[in-house]
Amino acid sequence: MVIGKVVGTVVSTRKSERLVGSKFLIVEPLEQEGQQRLVAVDTVGAGVGETVLVTLGSAARVACGTEVPVDAAIVGIVDQC
Amino acid sequence: MVIGKVVGTVVSTRKSERLVGSKFLIVEPLEQEGQQRLVAVDTVGAGVGETVLVTLGSAARVACGTEVPVDAAIVGIVDQC
Amino acid sequence: MVIGKVVGTVVSTRKSERLVGSKFLIVEPLEQEGQQRLVAVDTVGAGVGETVLVTLGSAARVACGTEVPVDAAIVGIVDQC
Amino acid sequence: MVIGKVVGTVVSTRKSERLVGSKFLIVEPLEQEGQQRLVAVDTVGAGVGETVLVTLGSAARVACGTEVPVDAAIVGIVDQC
Amino acid sequence: MVIGKVVGTVVSTRKSERLVGSKFLIVEPLEQEGQQRLVAVDTVGAGVGETVLVTLGSAARVACGTEVPVDAAIVGIVDQC
Repeated sequence: MVIGKVVGTVVSTRKSERLVGSKFLIVEPLEQEGQQRLVAVDTVGAGVGETVLVTLGSAARVACGTEVPVDAAIVGIVDQC
Repeated sequence: MVIGKVVGTVVSTRKSERLVGSKFLIVEPLEQEGQQRLVAVDTVGAGVGETVLVTLGSAARVACGTEVPVDAAIVGIVDQC
Repeated sequence: MVIGKVVGTVVSTRKSERLVGSKFLIVEPLEQEGQQRLVAVDTVGAGVGETVLVTLGSAARVACGTEVPVDAAIVGIVDQC
Repeated sequence: MVIGKVVGTVVSTRKSERLVGSKFLIVEPLEQEGQQRLVAVDTVGAGVGETVLVTLGSAARVACGTEVPVDAAIVGIVDQC
Repeated sequence: MVIGKVVGTVVSTRKSERLVGSKFLIVEPLEQEGQQRLVAVDTVGAGVGETVLVTLGSAARVACGTEVPVDAAIVGIVDQC
């Protein structure tokens, strides 16, 4: 998993039916200058400014549901690291 | 997922039977200079110039069908981010 | 797999129910300056300062359980390499 | 998927039984200086010098067979991009 | 897959039970300066100094067994490339 900071949201009206209801957040990985921002689906009620734990790849579907076409999910709010 | 801009299309006559009918678009990830362009299968009717949400890895098959050998799929049009 | 050194822990109170009880460790890959630190779930009783073997991707769920949304797991303590 | 050029072949006599009969080609991704060359199994009759579409990860097994231990497969010849 | 050279071994006494009996080799990818060394499980009798073909991700479990938590496996000895 990677730790990152939520820096924004994504609005997408026209999207896969299986993504309806998902909240997309933009996450900037910590301690990695120039590192790619990524879009993750929130599963824990995270908001902009919070430090979060993001799981990548097929594990994201374990968090969001096997029929949801996502590759990144926020699975925790980081209190301390 | 990553956000990118559709910058072109790919024409492939000789290809896997399971890819017949798929529309391949070239996507350039945003905010990442030097980042690799990738080829994604469109599932939402995206076109050149649009900003899109791309899911990578096995999640692309959730969007395109489990028997389709793809590793990237466009799953949303981004209105705002 | 990658070899890394455990350099810290992650505390997350608000997290996915399926992650309750998991110990999250921060691992710094060896021999890769500027390489991304990652968060892995411990399955072998590793501690800060130890050199460990980390498996990435869906293999992490083989180590932690198929219903656990993780993408990195510590699967060995490295004695020598 | 990535677009690349076939720049060579790989000969391997001693290999996994499940790879017997597979043709391994070396592919150089386009437009990415310094990018890693990769070895992909051919499924469409590609040859050295051709521009090809390569699918990565578990999708390669959709193209080659679920019991074949490969992580990259050539799934199309690119006519134009 | 990637081609690499076996440059060492990894000794791990305390490890996942499912890894008992696996031989871990350190592989340095060819033609990629600064590229990350990785640890792969040997399935073909490779040794230090040999040039090998390594499969990454879930494909490694096709080579090693579905219950083995590995993400890289040596699946061939390269004679020529």
